[in-house]
Amino acid sequence: MPETLIKVDLNQPAPSNENVHNRWHPDIPMACWVNPGDDFVLETYDWTGGFIKNDDSADDVRDIDLTTVHYLSGPVGVKGAKPGDLLVVELLDIGAKQDSLWGFNGFFSKKNGGGFLTEHFPQAQKSIWDFHGMFTTSRHIPGVKYAGLIHPGLIGCLPDPAMLETWNTREQALIDSDPATSGLANPPFAGTAHMGKLKGDAAAKAAATGARTVPPREHGGNCDIKDLSRGSKIFFPVYVDGAGLSVGDLHFSQGDGEITFCGAIEMAGWVHMKVSIIKGGMAMYGIKNPIFKPSPIVPTYNDYVIFEGISVDESGKQYYLDVNVAYRQACLNAIEYLKKFGYSGAQAYSILGTAPVQGHISGVVDVPNACATLWLPTQIFDFDINPSAAGPTKFIDGSVQMPLSPDLI
Amino acid sequence: MPETLIKVDLNQPAPSNENVHNRWHPDIPMACWVNPGDDFVLETYDWTGGFIKNDDSADDVRDIDLTTVHYLSGPVGVKGAKPGDLLVVELLDIGAKQDSLWGFNGFFSKKNGGGFLTEHFPQAQKSIWDFHGMFTTSRHIPGVKYAGLIHPGLIGCLPDPAMLETWNTREQALIDSDPATSGLANPPFAGTAHMGKLKGDAAAKAAATGARTVPPREHGGNCDIKDLSRGSKIFFPVYVDGAGLSVGDLHFSQGDGEITFCGAIEMAGWVHMKVSIIKGGMAMYGIKNPIFKPSPIVPTYNDYVIFEGISVDESGKQYYLDVNVAYRQACLNAIEYLKKFGYSGAQAYSILGTAPVQGHISGVVDVPNACATLWLPTQIFDFDINPSAAGPTKFIDGSVQMPLSPDLI
Amino acid sequence: MPETLIKVDLNQPAPSNENVHNRWHPDIPMACWVNPGDDFVLETYDWTGGFIKNDDSADDVRDIDLTTVHYLSGPVGVKGAKPGDLLVVELLDIGAKQDSLWGFNGFFSKKNGGGFLTEHFPQAQKSIWDFHGMFTTSRHIPGVKYAGLIHPGLIGCLPDPAMLETWNTREQALIDSDPATSGLANPPFAGTAHMGKLKGDAAAKAAATGARTVPPREHGGNCDIKDLSRGSKIFFPVYVDGAGLSVGDLHFSQGDGEITFCGAIEMAGWVHMKVSIIKGGMAMYGIKNPIFKPSPIVPTYNDYVIFEGISVDESGKQYYLDVNVAYRQACLNAIEYLKKFGYSGAQAYSILGTAPVQGHISGVVDVPNACATLWLPTQIFDFDINPSAAGPTKFIDGSVQMPLSPDLI
Amino acid sequence: MPETLIKVDLNQPAPSNENVHNRWHPDIPMACWVNPGDDFVLETYDWTGGFIKNDDSADDVRDIDLTTVHYLSGPVGVKGAKPGDLLVVELLDIGAKQDSLWGFNGFFSKKNGGGFLTEHFPQAQKSIWDFHGMFTTSRHIPGVKYAGLIHPGLIGCLPDPAMLETWNTREQALIDSDPATSGLANPPFAGTAHMGKLKGDAAAKAAATGARTVPPREHGGNCDIKDLSRGSKIFFPVYVDGAGLSVGDLHFSQGDGEITFCGAIEMAGWVHMKVSIIKGGMAMYGIKNPIFKPSPIVPTYNDYVIFEGISVDESGKQYYLDVNVAYRQACLNAIEYLKKFGYSGAQAYSILGTAPVQGHISGVVDVPNACATLWLPTQIFDFDINPSAAGPTKFIDGSVQMPLSPDLI
Repeated sequence: MPETLIKVDLNQPAPSNENVHNRWHPDIPMACWVNPGDDFVLETYDWTGGFIKNDDSADDVRDIDLTTVHYLSGPVGVKGAKPGDLLVVELLDIGAKQDSLWGFNGFFSKKNGGGFLTEHFPQAQKSIWDFHGMFTTSRHIPGVKYAGLIHPGLIGCLPDPAMLETWNTREQALIDSDPATSGLANPPFAGTAHMGKLKGDAAAKAAATGARTVPPREHGGNCDIKDLSRGSKIFFPVYVDGAGLSVGDLHFSQGDGEITFCGAIEMAGWVHMKVSIIKGGMAMYGIKNPIFKPSPIVPTYNDYVIFEGISVDESGKQYYLDVNVAYRQACLNAIEYLKKFGYSGAQAYSILGTAPVQGHISGVVDVPNACATLWLPTQIFDFDINPSAAGPTKFIDGSVQMPLSPDLI
Repeated sequence: MPETLIKVDLNQPAPSNENVHNRWHPDIPMACWVNPGDDFVLETYDWTGGFIKNDDSADDVRDIDLTTVHYLSGPVGVKGAKPGDLLVVELLDIGAKQDSLWGFNGFFSKKNGGGFLTEHFPQAQKSIWDFHGMFTTSRHIPGVKYAGLIHPGLIGCLPDPAMLETWNTREQALIDSDPATSGLANPPFAGTAHMGKLKGDAAAKAAATGARTVPPREHGGNCDIKDLSRGSKIFFPVYVDGAGLSVGDLHFSQGDGEITFCGAIEMAGWVHMKVSIIKGGMAMYGIKNPIFKPSPIVPTYNDYVIFEGISVDESGKQYYLDVNVAYRQACLNAIEYLKKFGYSGAQAYSILGTAPVQGHISGVVDVPNACATLWLPTQIFDFDINPSAAGPTKFIDGSVQMPLSPDLI
Repeated sequence: MPETLIKVDLNQPAPSNENVHNRWHPDIPMACWVNPGDDFVLETYDWTGGFIKNDDSADDVRDIDLTTVHYLSGPVGVKGAKPGDLLVVELLDIGAKQDSLWGFNGFFSKKNGGGFLTEHFPQAQKSIWDFHGMFTTSRHIPGVKYAGLIHPGLIGCLPDPAMLETWNTREQALIDSDPATSGLANPPFAGTAHMGKLKGDAAAKAAATGARTVPPREHGGNCDIKDLSRGSKIFFPVYVDGAGLSVGDLHFSQGDGEITFCGAIEMAGWVHMKVSIIKGGMAMYGIKNPIFKPSPIVPTYNDYVIFEGISVDESGKQYYLDVNVAYRQACLNAIEYLKKFGYSGAQAYSILGTAPVQGHISGVVDVPNACATLWLPTQIFDFDINPSAAGPTKFIDGSVQMPLSPDLI
Repeated sequence: MPETLIKVDLNQPAPSNENVHNRWHPDIPMACWVNPGDDFVLETYDWTGGFIKNDDSADDVRDIDLTTVHYLSGPVGVKGAKPGDLLVVELLDIGAKQDSLWGFNGFFSKKNGGGFLTEHFPQAQKSIWDFHGMFTTSRHIPGVKYAGLIHPGLIGCLPDPAMLETWNTREQALIDSDPATSGLANPPFAGTAHMGKLKGDAAAKAAATGARTVPPREHGGNCDIKDLSRGSKIFFPVYVDGAGLSVGDLHFSQGDGEITFCGAIEMAGWVHMKVSIIKGGMAMYGIKNPIFKPSPIVPTYNDYVIFEGISVDESGKQYYLDVNVAYRQACLNAIEYLKKFGYSGAQAYSILGTAPVQGHISGVVDVPNACATLWLPTQIFDFDINPSAAGPTKFIDGSVQMPLSPDLI
């Protein structure tokens, strides 16, 4: 039986667990050490540390303090790992905690985090998903069942001071480029920082510059790549002695883009992993960002309805080869389509955020329109969503809706 | 045997064929008519109408006049199709012309078209690909063989006058928004317009406003979606009586994004298709852009090395959730990786443009970094490109290179 | 363009074509020679040489003289191939002849060939299948459409005299073991033998011992393996100088077992192939029978209803680990199931013979019952054949039936 | 959290657990009851009830008393299930017990059980497999790692008295048909029967006629179908009120045929399942044996080396369309092939028994030779097993071998 090196107690606040942290900083002490070749288990909180509840109100989604996320388990030191190496991580298995067989998805208020379609869905909404072995369903979104493509939304190694400085500098430059716009990037914020085993002045000092965990960066981090699923094998750049691997933000299922932002189907759980080292691997393979091999065990969905979008926005404005605009249109097109079968727009949006939909960068050179495609698997629906000459049937009667919590004044 | 409704003679110039056109305009007469339920064959030129030759010089790629493209076969009128309907097109089969079993790929000069990585590959280069039944190899890029994911880069129906006006207006607005930058969009250009059967003044008048074929738009058009492959089924919006379906720009194989722009593996060939109509389908299904069902017969490649990219550019500049920047980084990361196995950068770039690589919009909400992934199928290589502790082997010795034609002063 | 080395004219009788033969014998002269590394095209008759017609009567299926089959194109000599080598054959592409875009399936009369379920379907029946690009449908069997898994039913190299002698001896021993039962094996029969370019006495002499083409043997031959499809790569044992590769019996689609015997969806067509040699490969790899690599381009059907069968026959008799009995039960179970949706038994049987159904040897050690499974792809049906609490719907109304020709007295 | 309705303690003998039984008989009382729609967990012993140990001796495999198997958990009563219904079982998830993360495979002595290739491997041998999350490797068989296709080898409902009588009668008839041959079938044997909660005289009476669990039968039972994996959905015939569902014989991985007989990779574990009922489903769908839908989450291995076998045995004897003989030859061909890479024959045999190899009934009508194919996935090997002109490399050096325990005199 592999050893569980980090445990989390869902009844205790995440900040009280010193094997957990919510910032990236080279001074965070290793929570534990392993040898290359070891396999072991790390338990994790959900990304919010338990703030979002299994209930029928979206108040928690509306009210969350996003400076607190993400609560990560680690860092795990790997003996012998040196800067310039590649840390090879095999995700042998991942699961939910047995006392927490559910997850959540939602949209943040436009005033507090937003999401990919926040202009269309500006208020906080939530759906709860129950896990049935390898499958999930929601009491708020009828008619769909997914086989879980379980993965960590966030995994990576500690930065060294130079890398950290690079991150903070370039992100601050973006913030400074447009002071009138809030939320362009999230600078360090000491107030809610949890620096693991680091205590006292050292913790305060590190917290002042500790990088926020929201964006993916050179080390991987919060990539939210659905295909980093259990069974996959990842090659991470190493920046500090011992590598310092941390993981969290587990997802039971997610679509490409994680467009709902609050998030995928978010859960507390555990990761069983094995680590090894490729000495000098960064230079040998020319690695800047992580690379990975996909899992040999994934949902085999292969029938889709595919939606196209181009880089002309909802108002008809033309953009130059902008994949974001194109993908947004493909998503909106899919939502309109699903509404014809009876889903509310919010439910359709949630499906795109939680089901294993694919988002492809289909064409990116045909001036001025980028073309993106959204692949909606048909096999997740209890009914037939294919187009036909007869037209769509309203299988969903609208009696079930997602909780919504309007912004407080 | 299905009837070949449009024939092309590769020894005759494309503009001499009146069943071919290179602009979108509602006045272009139908080249032929069919009934719903009919299946038939259309032959097509390659997108350049034969300008690019099967030789070892990139001069043609450098010197091409891009106002001439794309030469499309059609429009085909479908009896009974009315605005608001969906035209259902089943791509029953697609192939190269038997007297032209080869294709080309290349990069345009930065001064004449460019491409996704034109800053890195600013000069014209070309590779020629030979077809061996369902497979292709190149004499300019050793060590790879692909099973063809054959598809039309360009297919769609004629716009009505209002739609055409919308296109021209919004694209001109983009051009006007930054007059100092050329190539933001391509306005109508009568000089090289070929309006099919339309002749004389009527042709000249239509040519003056005929939309260029380069961008994908609401009608589909030049989507360059590799998965619109033979066997797929597409649902096109109809804007004019008879629909007016045209097709061209056939690709033997292409990667997501068609990043090399000159293009995929471009070929002359034929399309065997069947058409039917869903009356009033646009409103019934809420359709703005085409939707489609993928083919049940596609290459089964499912082992990949996957590269991540984030929206920080090569110079270290931070962008806000920009998928284009992120995908560019993933592509550059893959190129660096392939160079370790002996490929030139240009060869690696060509592989990404021509092989059935996937480009996924992996994360698009984690401020400020978008995350994109590029999936490189390992099974297309004659050797093992997986990372290992032993490091990469230089299987490619550099003795074979791609033709390059420097810009003329 | 690859050269077509052997042509067949469907308007001329197969026996008049000297590049065709219907027996295996080392004395049959090579029809043509190629070099290792060459790729080329061979045209083929359907296996009956055109005896079965595209009409609505099964008389031809009832009346066929099975001593005439199979008409094979070849043998092709490969320069340098020696006994003990492996001949590597890449099936680059396969298609129907453009003047013959249809195929047939049927059941022979129990009195003339029979089939796997001949006790249940003892009379001659036939269905005709039209090809629509990569797809096929039948005017005799509504509600199904298959993407073609196109393959040669029969391909292999010439035996040497010793191998031929082995075949004839062991098959005669089987015939002799039970003289009262006809059809246990088919001995040489000179009357209808066609020995290719061999003429006169030499032809007569060889015909007297030329092995019939019906069974698969060590050289491959009539394996009827649906997965030897276009795109696959086969490694054949070589017994004679030049190998002597022959091919025929093309199938547009077939299920595992080819249970209907008359046959798959049988067609005339062409094979584009490439050959090379592994010197001494038989000993190096311990090869007795051919081995092969599957095609990377195959129908992606992956949703099935799976039927179990055990080795207890229809009468309740217990057999000892007999996979044939078990598979027969699985087939009969599937037929009963399909009848609930409105198909006749004959139509259901035809579907199992022609669709890309899988037949698995699931358990073969659990005394006394073997267990076999038949995998019926759901995606070939126009309607939903999954079981549900509501019970089956009779989508097929019985108005269309397969031609049947009763035995003549 | 789903309730665990049946627990097993691996430190206690299986016969001491009254929620376990090792015979089929309608009088066995339900171990527990559930409602349609319930999901729940059953723990199970390995099929031998813990007799085979995690060590390096095959003595236990040699010495096992096969009258004791299989120890099944159940029967579970489903309220409302009536004879003629279909019991729908969704296998939501399956895993090994956390205190027993290993499994075994082996060959029985020819004198005690044997196996598919017992003439070639007549002595007891064993291999132990360790589980690493979703993967498994063996310390006795180097160079392979499998993603687990986890499934129950044995699952089904209780027979009614008439069905039981049918089984016993027909199996006894087989035994009686050839008294000189032992092991044709296994008649009831009271000595080692464990009848669950049934006690005293009632137990003794039932044990006298309780059907052995070895063969698959109409109710499913010991089908050893690898594709009944976690995620699949099975439709079982119901014969008694409450259905009486039992399950056991869990496999971490297995090849088609379970040719090694001692078994797949056998393990103790748990099954999370959900049950529902289709009233009158047997008649509605014409069901005699179970049918099932495959799992949407399975290993995606799709690259194979495929071996053919025909129904001529090792001595050259010709059989009439005998799939067993053909599959045996395909297996032997694969073993010879693997030996060229350094494996012992026993190791190769074990790989065929434990890896997710496919066994297809490829041709079953081409008199007199059946053709079977064995599909060996290449992606399970640490090295390249594809054939090439260079010949095979001995990657395996023979330093690791499987334990063998010779028969005692």
